[in-house]
Amino acid sequence: MLPVIHPAPEAPPFERIAIIGLGLIGGSLALAIRRKWAGGLLIGVDRKEVLEAGMRMHAVDVSADDAGMVAGADLIVLAAPIRQNIAMLHELPRFVQDGAVITDVGSTKTEILNEARSLPAPLTFIGGHPLAGAATGGVASARADLFDGRPWLLTTPAQEAALGRLETLLGGLGASPVRIQAADHDRLLASLSHLPQLVVSALMHVVGERAGERGLALAGRGLRDTTRLASSPPEIWRDIAATNAPAIREALDALIDVLQRLRADITRGEDLQRIFESAAEWKALLEGRASEPR
Amino acid sequence: MLPVIHPAPEAPPFERIAIIGLGLIGGSLALAIRRKWAGGLLIGVDRKEVLEAGMRMHAVDVSADDAGMVAGADLIVLAAPIRQNIAMLHELPRFVQDGAVITDVGSTKTEILNEARSLPAPLTFIGGHPLAGAATGGVASARADLFDGRPWLLTTPAQEAALGRLETLLGGLGASPVRIQAADHDRLLASLSHLPQLVVSALMHVVGERAGERGLALAGRGLRDTTRLASSPPEIWRDIAATNAPAIREALDALIDVLQRLRADITRGEDLQRIFESAAEWKALLEGRASEPR
Repeated sequence: MLPVIHPAPEAPPFERIAIIGLGLIGGSLALAIRRKWAGGLLIGVDRKEVLEAGMRMHAVDVSADDAGMVAGADLIVLAAPIRQNIAMLHELPRFVQDGAVITDVGSTKTEILNEARSLPAPLTFIGGHPLAGAATGGVASARADLFDGRPWLLTTPAQEAALGRLETLLGGLGASPVRIQAADHDRLLASLSHLPQLVVSALMHVVGERAGERGLALAGRGLRDTTRLASSPPEIWRDIAATNAPAIREALDALIDVLQRLRADITRGEDLQRIFESAAEWKALLEGRASEPR
Repeated sequence: MLPVIHPAPEAPPFERIAIIGLGLIGGSLALAIRRKWAGGLLIGVDRKEVLEAGMRMHAVDVSADDAGMVAGADLIVLAAPIRQNIAMLHELPRFVQDGAVITDVGSTKTEILNEARSLPAPLTFIGGHPLAGAATGGVASARADLFDGRPWLLTTPAQEAALGRLETLLGGLGASPVRIQAADHDRLLASLSHLPQLVVSALMHVVGERAGERGLALAGRGLRDTTRLASSPPEIWRDIAATNAPAIREALDALIDVLQRLRADITRGEDLQRIFESAAEWKALLEGRASEPR
């Protein structure tokens, strides 16, 4: 999982790039490609009102609300919620030209790779997942530098040549491509991202219901920071949860078990002591200040 | 629970203030009093190495590692972990002068108020809790402006006169004194502070154990912000948990119940949809951008 350094070449590795779904990630990808390679053609596909915002930001050259527009592209990026990406994957064999590379930016990888393998016509599909985000979604929050220095996980059974071209593109626009197996990806992301998101939303819901409006007015920066992710859009997260259910269930079970232990031992506090010490050590590691905890 | 505005008077409401426990809160209180009223005498009581740091920061005028030093004080602030404050409360009747006001800064109020009522000799005790903090504790993190604009909850059966004097002091140093019943305080803080802290520590522990050092290296800002509180000191939190066990158990049960519902419905996502929508509404309210959710 070590990142590989890819010096950016002069010529873009793809000439005509179609991005289906111009949200935070799709929009930022368009802006990042535009920043690095002004010459290539960028095609955006989304609903009309999203496309208008994307055109105003000069994120794309051509826009359409019809997937047929991607026919001439040599790279097609699926950047809608996961289950829309999967539905689109089934449409693509009717449109795409020979040699086109398909990738996605979804937060789970096993299910979309299985779907890609099951297609009647063969497609060169490479699963992708940029580890970058923002507290608010949508093309209005898109930024050309969203992926700078961030890992972009790639998971694929595809030919080495196509993978190399995609890595050259992603490295050129500032990200660090990292290869990983789909199952490893989904298990890791269940811990790093999916569990924290579910827990933050559950916590904000419970705290709000119990404290009420007047109680929340007394909350400080601790609760605000802890719940930064609590505005995340449910549509995207329903797809993530549904397509990574086994790994998320396992992570949730582990957390519920720790919470039950804290609850059972709350007056003695010996489990609390151990769990807080472990948490502080992992936190130091997360912030790059320590070696691996015992 | 509406804050009352207290214009700061010229003369300090207390002349000799003793602070027992010079950590983040005790140290910041000393610096805030010093900033506002340079004239009064500040006495710090703690272990020798802590006192040396406090003296170097000019937080206190006199320091001692012996509680007997508080004998001449007209205000005594208990600012150690809760169960040390309770132990100290039992020592104080031997030392304190008539008319002295005792307060504390602990995060739970029911238990210490019960202890104060049970003392053989009567003491004027007012429970206090400044809603202010920092990601790192200790006198080294103390700041004169820590309480600026923050609520300072006060809970007491004490005489109105003593309460008014303490409110004048706290208002003068920039905080907003708010009166609240001890049981209401403990229930509210279980939701606003104690539950979030336990959940963050449990989450960081579980994520670290599952992702490992190499996995954590891929984590982004979302996990970092979510786990900002994960370095909190276990000693302080053992006391908080042990002295607010019923309210914390109730809050933990509510959260575990929501997590179980999310887990059971993870592939359909209807509970996820509802919980995420509720969380986003409460989050908007927490950030002051909306009216009360349905």
